[in-house]
Amino acid sequence: MRSYQRHNADLRPITFEPHFTQHAEGSCLIKMGATWVLTTATIEEKVPRWLEKKDEGWLTAEYAMLPRATHERVVRESMKGRPGGRTLEIQRLIGRSLRACLDFKKLGPRTIIIDCDVLQADGGTRTASINGGFVALSIAINKLLQKGTLKENPLFDTVSAISLGMKNGEILTDLDYQEDSSCDVDVNVVMLGQEQLIEIQGTGEKATFSVAQTSDMLGHATVAIAKIRQQQLAAL
Amino acid sequence: MRSYQRHNADLRPITFEPHFTQHAEGSCLIKMGATWVLTTATIEEKVPRWLEKKDEGWLTAEYAMLPRATHERVVRESMKGRPGGRTLEIQRLIGRSLRACLDFKKLGPRTIIIDCDVLQADGGTRTASINGGFVALSIAINKLLQKGTLKENPLFDTVSAISLGMKNGEILTDLDYQEDSSCDVDVNVVMLGQEQLIEIQGTGEKATFSVAQTSDMLGHATVAIAKIRQQQLAAL
Amino acid sequence: MRSYQRHNADLRPITFEPHFTQHAEGSCLIKMGATWVLTTATIEEKVPRWLEKKDEGWLTAEYAMLPRATHERVVRESMKGRPGGRTLEIQRLIGRSLRACLDFKKLGPRTIIIDCDVLQADGGTRTASINGGFVALSIAINKLLQKGTLKENPLFDTVSAISLGMKNGEILTDLDYQEDSSCDVDVNVVMLGQEQLIEIQGTGEKATFSVAQTSDMLGHATVAIAKIRQQQLAAL
Amino acid sequence: MRSYQRHNADLRPITFEPHFTQHAEGSCLIKMGATWVLTTATIEEKVPRWLEKKDEGWLTAEYAMLPRATHERVVRESMKGRPGGRTLEIQRLIGRSLRACLDFKKLGPRTIIIDCDVLQADGGTRTASINGGFVALSIAINKLLQKGTLKENPLFDTVSAISLGMKNGEILTDLDYQEDSSCDVDVNVVMLGQEQLIEIQGTGEKATFSVAQTSDMLGHATVAIAKIRQQQLAAL
Amino acid sequence: MRSYQRHNADLRPITFEPHFTQHAEGSCLIKMGATWVLTTATIEEKVPRWLEKKDEGWLTAEYAMLPRATHERVVRESMKGRPGGRTLEIQRLIGRSLRACLDFKKLGPRTIIIDCDVLQADGGTRTASINGGFVALSIAINKLLQKGTLKENPLFDTVSAISLGMKNGEILTDLDYQEDSSCDVDVNVVMLGQEQLIEIQGTGEKATFSVAQTSDMLGHATVAIAKIRQQQLAAL
Amino acid sequence: MRSYQRHNADLRPITFEPHFTQHAEGSCLIKMGATWVLTTATIEEKVPRWLEKKDEGWLTAEYAMLPRATHERVVRESMKGRPGGRTLEIQRLIGRSLRACLDFKKLGPRTIIIDCDVLQADGGTRTASINGGFVALSIAINKLLQKGTLKENPLFDTVSAISLGMKNGEILTDLDYQEDSSCDVDVNVVMLGQEQLIEIQGTGEKATFSVAQTSDMLGHATVAIAKIRQQQLAAL
Repeated sequence: MRSYQRHNADLRPITFEPHFTQHAEGSCLIKMGATWVLTTATIEEKVPRWLEKKDEGWLTAEYAMLPRATHERVVRESMKGRPGGRTLEIQRLIGRSLRACLDFKKLGPRTIIIDCDVLQADGGTRTASINGGFVALSIAINKLLQKGTLKENPLFDTVSAISLGMKNGEILTDLDYQEDSSCDVDVNVVMLGQEQLIEIQGTGEKATFSVAQTSDMLGHATVAIAKIRQQQLAAL
Repeated sequence: MRSYQRHNADLRPITFEPHFTQHAEGSCLIKMGATWVLTTATIEEKVPRWLEKKDEGWLTAEYAMLPRATHERVVRESMKGRPGGRTLEIQRLIGRSLRACLDFKKLGPRTIIIDCDVLQADGGTRTASINGGFVALSIAINKLLQKGTLKENPLFDTVSAISLGMKNGEILTDLDYQEDSSCDVDVNVVMLGQEQLIEIQGTGEKATFSVAQTSDMLGHATVAIAKIRQQQLAAL
Repeated sequence: MRSYQRHNADLRPITFEPHFTQHAEGSCLIKMGATWVLTTATIEEKVPRWLEKKDEGWLTAEYAMLPRATHERVVRESMKGRPGGRTLEIQRLIGRSLRACLDFKKLGPRTIIIDCDVLQADGGTRTASINGGFVALSIAINKLLQKGTLKENPLFDTVSAISLGMKNGEILTDLDYQEDSSCDVDVNVVMLGQEQLIEIQGTGEKATFSVAQTSDMLGHATVAIAKIRQQQLAAL
Repeated sequence: MRSYQRHNADLRPITFEPHFTQHAEGSCLIKMGATWVLTTATIEEKVPRWLEKKDEGWLTAEYAMLPRATHERVVRESMKGRPGGRTLEIQRLIGRSLRACLDFKKLGPRTIIIDCDVLQADGGTRTASINGGFVALSIAINKLLQKGTLKENPLFDTVSAISLGMKNGEILTDLDYQEDSSCDVDVNVVMLGQEQLIEIQGTGEKATFSVAQTSDMLGHATVAIAKIRQQQLAAL
Repeated sequence: MRSYQRHNADLRPITFEPHFTQHAEGSCLIKMGATWVLTTATIEEKVPRWLEKKDEGWLTAEYAMLPRATHERVVRESMKGRPGGRTLEIQRLIGRSLRACLDFKKLGPRTIIIDCDVLQADGGTRTASINGGFVALSIAINKLLQKGTLKENPLFDTVSAISLGMKNGEILTDLDYQEDSSCDVDVNVVMLGQEQLIEIQGTGEKATFSVAQTSDMLGHATVAIAKIRQQQLAAL
Repeated sequence: MRSYQRHNADLRPITFEPHFTQHAEGSCLIKMGATWVLTTATIEEKVPRWLEKKDEGWLTAEYAMLPRATHERVVRESMKGRPGGRTLEIQRLIGRSLRACLDFKKLGPRTIIIDCDVLQADGGTRTASINGGFVALSIAINKLLQKGTLKENPLFDTVSAISLGMKNGEILTDLDYQEDSSCDVDVNVVMLGQEQLIEIQGTGEKATFSVAQTSDMLGHATVAIAKIRQQQLAAL
């Protein structure tokens, strides 16, 4: 049996705690099972150099794990002098995903930074970061709208993400750490709204997969993302 | 009036949430007012190179702030490639302080790492780290005693810390961020048990101070530390 | 009309120059249109620390661009002090992909390093690196078989890769730089043999895409990879 | 008996060699026993970014040891890629201390850099750096006054520093290396003029200390600093 | 007998392949025996900070080896975080040498970057880089003259370089790797035109050498450089 | 007239202060005019990894300037995170030069580190470092011989160095900073004993030079080095 007495297509229990910390323009603690990510949205009234003089904004993301978010303590990246390849890959994914729901013309010359800090990890930290990051982002945007800084809402849809795996030919939704490390195939899917793909990343860790299986997994992803999206909207 | 309707000698409301996260040998979320620090204790069955072949243990600490723990977002130290001077200074202080309550012969050839990650900052993060770190450390030690890994308790007393300031000749206990930045003199005190000093660090930020004033501040520190100590013991 | 007078499903002209340089155990210069990558395979008689004492091998990849492989000169990563996120992401992909065709038990305690250095870039450098890297890898393995160092061939299939894009609803195969930067959706596919997926990475750069479109793109990828595979086998 | 046939409250022989090197605006070689520090003051006609457009100056300090200033050679920090925690802690202390005697409005938009390079170390290098650094600073300020660049003297008092230790209940003044490493308690005191504290840093290395003992040590520090101050004034 | 059936004063076969890659303003693949260097010239319409507001240009060079240019794979300098001492020494030499043939007033406020990437190494990579770099530089300058960006030719002569060695009292010209590592004395000579020295670097690796022997080696260098110069001119 | 009322072939006043600091196995402060370098020799009872198990020793050198050794303050290399190209080039030269006088078989499995720290710079710091470094090295070797650690003297000759320049066709010996920056040609020569070249590095900074002029400069170097050698021997 899977953790939390789940069937293959079930999600772990999800909770969003919006406004968790007080200094950021938006913040949300997301818990997907034992995976806890503190996400915050910061709004800065400036843009990267390559965007200067265009009347547009930008969004970027950073991701990190506390050293003891994991079973074995991991060395802080500030001690190693640089974020590792896995970290960079994840924060590039989070940034690309959340940029997909924003109209940067409407945002104007501002930069939004989404910080995703994993307090506790049990698989699926990148998809949890996207789900929680969307809520933090929305809170921050609402604040700008209420203050009248923004006239029009630059946010035109939701962004949600889910991880799936294939094991012995079966498709599992929302993998925890133990499942993740024993899966044959590992897929992360990000969608705008309920059915439009922004990103698919599939890897055959221990086996290959077919075109038909890819379609099946995308079907399961669509169902899971509809549920997550509902909870994101409820949290706002 | 001070925050939380406090008199000069009063502490902010303190809460300890032991066992906050699950992977570390010990963990505690401490809140001193709006200053929140997640502290964890990791036990590794090895020692630094310079201790090899002696039959003794060691304790070291690391400190970091989440980028949006503060009013203005601060750049991650992993992006700058190195922890800054303030960070190194604070983690050296935490390490020295918590080593004072341990008998390393009794600990045996193990290293304890205390991670202090500031989720939200409102002044006094280094003293909160020491107070919470002591609780995380005690939990981890108890686990080793229960498992029988340790025969004798290497922990022989409590360690507690408080910050004080002097403003217009008055002594304030447990400064929040706003007080901290407007103080004339800033003092951090760490004590073993209730009255024995382990560390005093006093700085005249905007003014100088006398020998007599130093004694007065140490008197106030003694009172505050007795209260904190009581709460630490209650949390265990 | 596309570059090289191509239809949407056509590849650019591909050539493999095996044995291009002489020091490496295997080397191959691959040209896919104006994208030129010098790939080499190095075999080292040691394994990473985490594999020690298991009787298995490993494969890892590194990727870099010469500073003037591109229209605008890019700063050397050795001058910036670290490989960037894009570089790390690409070399992780190349490594994962080429590990899929190797039986590491049969390889024994050896490490293979695939170096992919882009001499000239015109889109699709990561897929060209995988295609050329496979040829360099095969040459190196053959050398070990001929010398009798290896008794059994650890290589059990081919690995090939292709990039695709979607623009105004049409699917384009093997994008050059200009197409790549103007595409709505960008997909990289890696396959073992002719039809088994090892990796899919799809990103909606400027638009989203549907589950059905994903299947279509995978169909085109299957056709393209069959052609590349034929040329890889011919080059050996 | 202590080194140099000293009683507990005695200083080691101190000499100041002002104008030791010729290029800096101010320079002084200080010798406290076998601790030799070459201090220089550099004046730059610019301010850090955060002070721009305010009509004020700043002072900052850097500290380093030559690799063979010590019994065992220490690796250069330029080879390790970063100054260590101890170095950063010391140079922050030197900077804070020497800023206490300057009126930055009178200094105007200039930055003073105090470089403290330890040619030979025998304990007390941070306090020697402050004592010598003050002399180098004064020489540089005098030069600006003589040239008429400054109209009013921004220096309004002296800054002096002393280290003390407690061993078997006795207070020792001006520790050499051997005493420093065997002390129970280690205190550094910096004063403005003769009796006003700028900084106190006390650490129980091997034992704790009481409030009363802190007062005693500050009494001894006051006496020692009066003597050092006299020699600083004589050297100018 | 030497490689390529050469006598002591003979060069290895040299070929220049100008216009090897297409993006750079100038490019040339030089082969001196099995030493292959891809050299490119980039022209940037800006100057280093210290040249701003003077109406002059600058030339700088960068040098690197592909990891598998050599018998044993060398670690990428981007992985080590910094170019090593040998790399920096060589690129400083290439830069100084090629600056000797340019009138920077006539070049105007532009920076030329010569990139020398060693595809395959068999001794003499620094002299090959200078020889090929000169051809890439000339091509780039000619392009600026043809476009009318430059009115007058800033290039007033050729630059060529050769390595020599002394072994058992005999002088060898154009050393390959094996000779280079077994030589007693190793000399690199760079000349403007045919007879004017820009640079001489001689090192007694295993023996010392006399003033008279230095003159002899310079005589041989003069002859070799006349031949290289002829081929450089022919390639343009 | 040149500084110190010198003729073209004259040296600046040179003094060697052996045993300047006390912790190193050998130390010497050398002053050549206003160029002052503190050189120390450290002996470590271990060898670099590539020498392990051979019964031989090694010598390596490090070079640095104090930030205010120069007219304008230079940023510490520890703050920049790495030694610059000029530093690495100089310390490689010092190391190669001093290795030429040592029999590493007789030294046995030890490493000697020569640290050259420039307290004040006025041209010729690399040649002064070699001259002073030789004295520090000899002192350290003598100490090992006296203690009986070494049976035979591994030092078989002296090493000395001089800088020369050519200006308006005239040859100048031992350049100070002002001459160095206005010279047409700049040559550094290192000799073993009195007449055997170990190293020649000549650069046409502003002009070229001929084979005949090179011989002339080497003649002047021979004379100067004989004088320096005499003073080195006298200092020991």
